[in-house]
Amino acid sequence: MLSLKHLAINSFNENLAYVHKDCVDYKVDDIKTLTRVEIHGGVRPVYAFLQVVDDAKVVKPDELALNTEAFRQINLPESAKVSLTLSPPAPSLTSIKKKIAGNILSAAEYGGIVSDIAAKRYSNMDIASFLVASSSFMTTSEVLAFTEALIGDNTFRWENEDIVVDHHCFGGVPGNKTDIIMTAIVAAYGLPMAKTCSRSLSSCAGVADTMGVLANVDLDEKQFRSLLKENRGVIGCYQSLPIAEANKIISDVERHIGLTQQQHLAASILAIKLAAGVTHLVVDIPVGPTSRVKSTNEAMRLRKLVEYVGDMLSIEIDAVITDGSEPIGNGIGAVLEARDIMKILRNKDDAPQDLLEKSLFLAGRILEFDPKLRGGQGYHVAKEILTSGRALEAMNKIIYGQGKAPQPQLGNLTRDIVSSVSGEVESIDNARINRIGVLAGAGRYSGAGLDLLKKVGDRVEQGEALYRIHAVNSTDFAFANSVVDGNTGYEISTGKGRY
Amino acid sequence: MLSLKHLAINSFNENLAYVHKDCVDYKVDDIKTLTRVEIHGGVRPVYAFLQVVDDAKVVKPDELALNTEAFRQINLPESAKVSLTLSPPAPSLTSIKKKIAGNILSAAEYGGIVSDIAAKRYSNMDIASFLVASSSFMTTSEVLAFTEALIGDNTFRWENEDIVVDHHCFGGVPGNKTDIIMTAIVAAYGLPMAKTCSRSLSSCAGVADTMGVLANVDLDEKQFRSLLKENRGVIGCYQSLPIAEANKIISDVERHIGLTQQQHLAASILAIKLAAGVTHLVVDIPVGPTSRVKSTNEAMRLRKLVEYVGDMLSIEIDAVITDGSEPIGNGIGAVLEARDIMKILRNKDDAPQDLLEKSLFLAGRILEFDPKLRGGQGYHVAKEILTSGRALEAMNKIIYGQGKAPQPQLGNLTRDIVSSVSGEVESIDNARINRIGVLAGAGRYSGAGLDLLKKVGDRVEQGEALYRIHAVNSTDFAFANSVVDGNTGYEISTGKGRY
Repeated sequence: MLSLKHLAINSFNENLAYVHKDCVDYKVDDIKTLTRVEIHGGVRPVYAFLQVVDDAKVVKPDELALNTEAFRQINLPESAKVSLTLSPPAPSLTSIKKKIAGNILSAAEYGGIVSDIAAKRYSNMDIASFLVASSSFMTTSEVLAFTEALIGDNTFRWENEDIVVDHHCFGGVPGNKTDIIMTAIVAAYGLPMAKTCSRSLSSCAGVADTMGVLANVDLDEKQFRSLLKENRGVIGCYQSLPIAEANKIISDVERHIGLTQQQHLAASILAIKLAAGVTHLVVDIPVGPTSRVKSTNEAMRLRKLVEYVGDMLSIEIDAVITDGSEPIGNGIGAVLEARDIMKILRNKDDAPQDLLEKSLFLAGRILEFDPKLRGGQGYHVAKEILTSGRALEAMNKIIYGQGKAPQPQLGNLTRDIVSSVSGEVESIDNARINRIGVLAGAGRYSGAGLDLLKKVGDRVEQGEALYRIHAVNSTDFAFANSVVDGNTGYEISTGKGRY
Repeated sequence: MLSLKHLAINSFNENLAYVHKDCVDYKVDDIKTLTRVEIHGGVRPVYAFLQVVDDAKVVKPDELALNTEAFRQINLPESAKVSLTLSPPAPSLTSIKKKIAGNILSAAEYGGIVSDIAAKRYSNMDIASFLVASSSFMTTSEVLAFTEALIGDNTFRWENEDIVVDHHCFGGVPGNKTDIIMTAIVAAYGLPMAKTCSRSLSSCAGVADTMGVLANVDLDEKQFRSLLKENRGVIGCYQSLPIAEANKIISDVERHIGLTQQQHLAASILAIKLAAGVTHLVVDIPVGPTSRVKSTNEAMRLRKLVEYVGDMLSIEIDAVITDGSEPIGNGIGAVLEARDIMKILRNKDDAPQDLLEKSLFLAGRILEFDPKLRGGQGYHVAKEILTSGRALEAMNKIIYGQGKAPQPQLGNLTRDIVSSVSGEVESIDNARINRIGVLAGAGRYSGAGLDLLKKVGDRVEQGEALYRIHAVNSTDFAFANSVVDGNTGYEISTGKGRY
């Protein structure tokens, strides 16, 4: 037996077990491998990966140290007696080899993979292998099976609500934070909107990042439930809720390896919504040459897929294909996006009209889930709620209910990117703009991002600013500057040609 | 600036940098990601991944701790002043996304990937992504480019030698350790055989494990060179030699995720041989329904691939397709295989004839690389060297030159697996036998493995032992026992049907 110790190290996802190389109760192999072990002594065995230590100050030969996550899971005090054994590879790992070899996996196999991931039996390498292998192709049935598995064991039930709505976007368009505006409008109308969102995966800001500038989004289940009841709208980071646990781990790995795959994304979105007890969902699929979904055909396939999986899992889906040809709104990055949103809710003259119109359009689609509303009236009702100030009122209730966030700080390292010619903005490259923003620190720091001063169709003079970069720290600022000169992401038409 | 500390943790491949959550010189992001950093202060920046610590006893807010591998690389004393910055993702990571999307990569892209892996700029997840993505398809030119990249910066040159020979097998057949016998024969003949080998990747024993039972195989470059000169034959684990560094990391990840892909294997084998300065190589491709290569067509494609890459990189290849329908020899696992090898070299009556004959055949092919030897004489010369005792003499020189290993210990947890019927052994499943051996601990413990008491064609009575399992520890023994009853790997023909 070994004496348990907590080593307060936050590793990335994996449970790590630290043993001394001369461990008294476990023979450390001298070959180089990432050894799978299980730790006994708690209610259930805890799975972990071995780290071998040659320093008794870190872990003594008669101790077993666990990192923060594994220590939380074993739920025993320090100095408790535990034992360590080699763990056989999780049975579902053989399914991954089948997927790598090009096979179609069964629903039971997806179930096995996802539950082993949630049980921390997969290393990050195993998860990356599964994700890359399955990204090469998945049948529609596989997407359904994967979605169902990702829902997990815990799903919310909303008593006394016939309809619980939400919205999710497939992404790829910087700035596009319609969700927060929609939640205010829908809540003001009175339909319960249980908005789950997440931090940025590969973009300049996730909805949770932007809302996080305004209010606390790390709500627990009790808060999420009572706030929805109270305010008819709540915006919570799903990572803080006890749902879709495997999806959190998978997302972290996808973020790290930079994998964005539409079928995975569809499964992930629908699983979170189903786990959150959403009954009616608007799905936004923006299409554009530099967006995530590049063609209408591709968008249509994705729409059909989402509708099919939704039907099979009994969630009402209204999937809308929208214009994703350029960024939406002016601000890109959490603080700047929050500024745009508040301008719209406050009916300011300089509010970005594209973001405003798209939010009204989508909010209208959600409102039309209400059987009492006459068809085709959604947009107008949404507009009335916004212009009357009722949306702002609802938003303030939501913000104060969740807990107002401290005053946001915009990054003060700035640079204006100017046009080298006079002409008209012909196009803006979503992917390039996103990359420059991410390099500037957006997605990691809420105050970093880009403020777009010109949009497609705008007149620009030589030397005039196209956008402003904001960074919080100098390393990020240097990264962004090092790439922006090669390609600003803007194309200017002079009448004599494009620049 | 931070004060450098060595945290003696052996992690798996990755360089890890531990900072306190309130680090005085680096703002720890609160989002969950595996942060890529670089540490400045040494001759070159050292790349690492961040681990956040909430325990000043492990690392203080003004300290930066590095794990063993990263600390070795930075090559500075403890308490040296270092600084930490965020690192941009390695440029070659974009090539991986291209490969995931199904593109063909250029030679320059393979070069970038491999050198970034060697520089520790890839996380294990990144490496797993690359391996799985490239395993789905690679063109012949890609295999060539990958091989060339894997050779790395350091290659051995053998002065005063026109020919330096070696042999490598594609694997998949348990017990098949011809290499060690061949080295003894070829060295006795006088051709220099610079045998590089490795520890087990997914088998019951790598050549380095089996030779490691007899002698030290962890030779450094100086030892490897002088022993070849002295004894005309040397068997060294390539992991101990300063060659093909990226390949070592890649193999560790492939081992963990259980990926064995023939093109990767071909690239890896040829790169190591080229880095070791081998000029003439015999490649053994065993074919059988339960071997790694399943059909003659597949073996032929692999032979052509190896010949093409060999030609382009100027190494003379003699690729031989051999019978891989059942295990070769009786012992499976390092200690048992070493026993078989010594029986053959000592010309014992009970030496396994299949292993003996195959070794002579392949040794003959190597000897025929010698322009002075008359064509077709190789086998006979090899046989004469073996039966005369000159091979044993050469082997003893090699063993004592490299350093005799301590007396080997065979695992003393044993179980005889008996036949449930009387009849004739119809077939033995290589993959199944390998799996049972690996579960019994073979590949991790030299004393674990299987001793085959019957081979294909042998008569067996009901209740008679087919093979004996040897395990070193009880967990492994239980693992092996839990699967062996379902399927022993043996098929017995009774005349009335197969069992």
